[in-house]
Amino acid sequence: MLSLVWAECDPLPAGDRGLSYGDGLFETIRVHGQRLLLGDRHLTRLHEGAQRLGIPVARSDLESCLAEALDRYARPGDWVLKLILTRGVGGRGYVPPVPCQPRLILSCHEMPVLPDPAGVSVQLGRHPLAVNPVLAGLKSLNRLDQVMASAELGAGNYEVLMTDGHGHLLEGTRTNLMLRVSGQWLMPPMSALAVHGVMQAEVKAQLQAAGEVVREQPLDLSLLSHPQLDGVFLMNSVTGIVPVSRIDDRDLPIDGSLATICRPLTSLK
Amino acid sequence: MLSLVWAECDPLPAGDRGLSYGDGLFETIRVHGQRLLLGDRHLTRLHEGAQRLGIPVARSDLESCLAEALDRYARPGDWVLKLILTRGVGGRGYVPPVPCQPRLILSCHEMPVLPDPAGVSVQLGRHPLAVNPVLAGLKSLNRLDQVMASAELGAGNYEVLMTDGHGHLLEGTRTNLMLRVSGQWLMPPMSALAVHGVMQAEVKAQLQAAGEVVREQPLDLSLLSHPQLDGVFLMNSVTGIVPVSRIDDRDLPIDGSLATICRPLTSLK
Repeated sequence: MLSLVWAECDPLPAGDRGLSYGDGLFETIRVHGQRLLLGDRHLTRLHEGAQRLGIPVARSDLESCLAEALDRYARPGDWVLKLILTRGVGGRGYVPPVPCQPRLILSCHEMPVLPDPAGVSVQLGRHPLAVNPVLAGLKSLNRLDQVMASAELGAGNYEVLMTDGHGHLLEGTRTNLMLRVSGQWLMPPMSALAVHGVMQAEVKAQLQAAGEVVREQPLDLSLLSHPQLDGVFLMNSVTGIVPVSRIDDRDLPIDGSLATICRPLTSLK
Repeated sequence: MLSLVWAECDPLPAGDRGLSYGDGLFETIRVHGQRLLLGDRHLTRLHEGAQRLGIPVARSDLESCLAEALDRYARPGDWVLKLILTRGVGGRGYVPPVPCQPRLILSCHEMPVLPDPAGVSVQLGRHPLAVNPVLAGLKSLNRLDQVMASAELGAGNYEVLMTDGHGHLLEGTRTNLMLRVSGQWLMPPMSALAVHGVMQAEVKAQLQAAGEVVREQPLDLSLLSHPQLDGVFLMNSVTGIVPVSRIDDRDLPIDGSLATICRPLTSLK
């Protein structure tokens, strides 16, 4: 059974494997009142991630805890619910205990400041992202790459974009990205991504439903100066979708088509 | 200043970045009574690691906490002291807070069972190790690769050896490795290692002081069937050095020279 921790009042045992090894996963979900944004996608990612890590947890148990959290934390307007799922305590060093008692740590947070919908400035990061293909996409607690890259964030910039260190754009520290080039939507290969964003999946699905072409392919940095580049977009499930107006000292074209086609955030209210 | 947590009695705030992002480091140190084994190397690795991550902590503060822990936990015989250093709470998501209040979490543990000094059986793991060269060697709290690889550990085996997924031996989940081939000592390039082991550094130094040749080079798996292979050795600072007598279904030669040249563990008592 899942051991439940309410972050604002319950202590966390220092021996939890989430702390010791980053042996767990997390989700941050935007909530309006008691309504989750993309709740099903978040729950599915968490549950499938747990299966990939061999952390035994029933989807129905996650759903019950989520409902309890919504009752407990409900408030008017938008807020953020954070779930941390760990393998709990125990094991011989790294070796996971079998059976284990997973732990779910719940907390609520203020909404972050939303980016200017007209466009944001970002920077290319120096810290490369190293993704183990076997762990690709997992929103695990192993996030040092994102921490180190975001430590570079300059004043006035919204995000640091990370590459694989070999000239391929991958993702922001807390956003996924899509490019629109020659009327097609391009995103990096899923196997190269640290995080498989639920908003990216939603956007991809909405684009495809609208008859748009979405391609996964390595995104060479040279695409940023491609003459047919229509726009670069960042997205996550809490702050939504935003076009990039500037990368370092380079102005980018702003394309309004994504906002026109996708309305995943406004559908909440 | 360092915020001190005694794991057996103090609660840990659930918002600590060590849990949220694996934003921290750890050390496990073998202690005999109140005497640390390779204490200076452990402290140096922790302090230098903190500098690489931008976690501001004075070496003298770490030394004071270590002394306090030795007083508190001292017992006859061998035991293990664990230190977890995190960036503490705060920050905007991944962005590290500046200034930050680092936290040091201390705990004491029983010695693990020591391996048979005559030799151990190990297995080659299927889970590849992905090391970001920028974070190479750091004993950080991002240890999912080690967790997933060690979940493969079969009954009777001491360790799972990890490769880079391209046919090069790197390290065990909790040990570093050296090969002796044609009378030379071989170890993987430091830039490819997840953990720069203090025992590996000590062994390397002792071998070189004894006039032995130690080379860093990619260790192709074919070296395991090299006709001049004298032995494969695993080492860490808690359980010492042990020869490998068997990898999967392959028997290996046992070479006693390392135990003869290096006596880093027996020097404690």
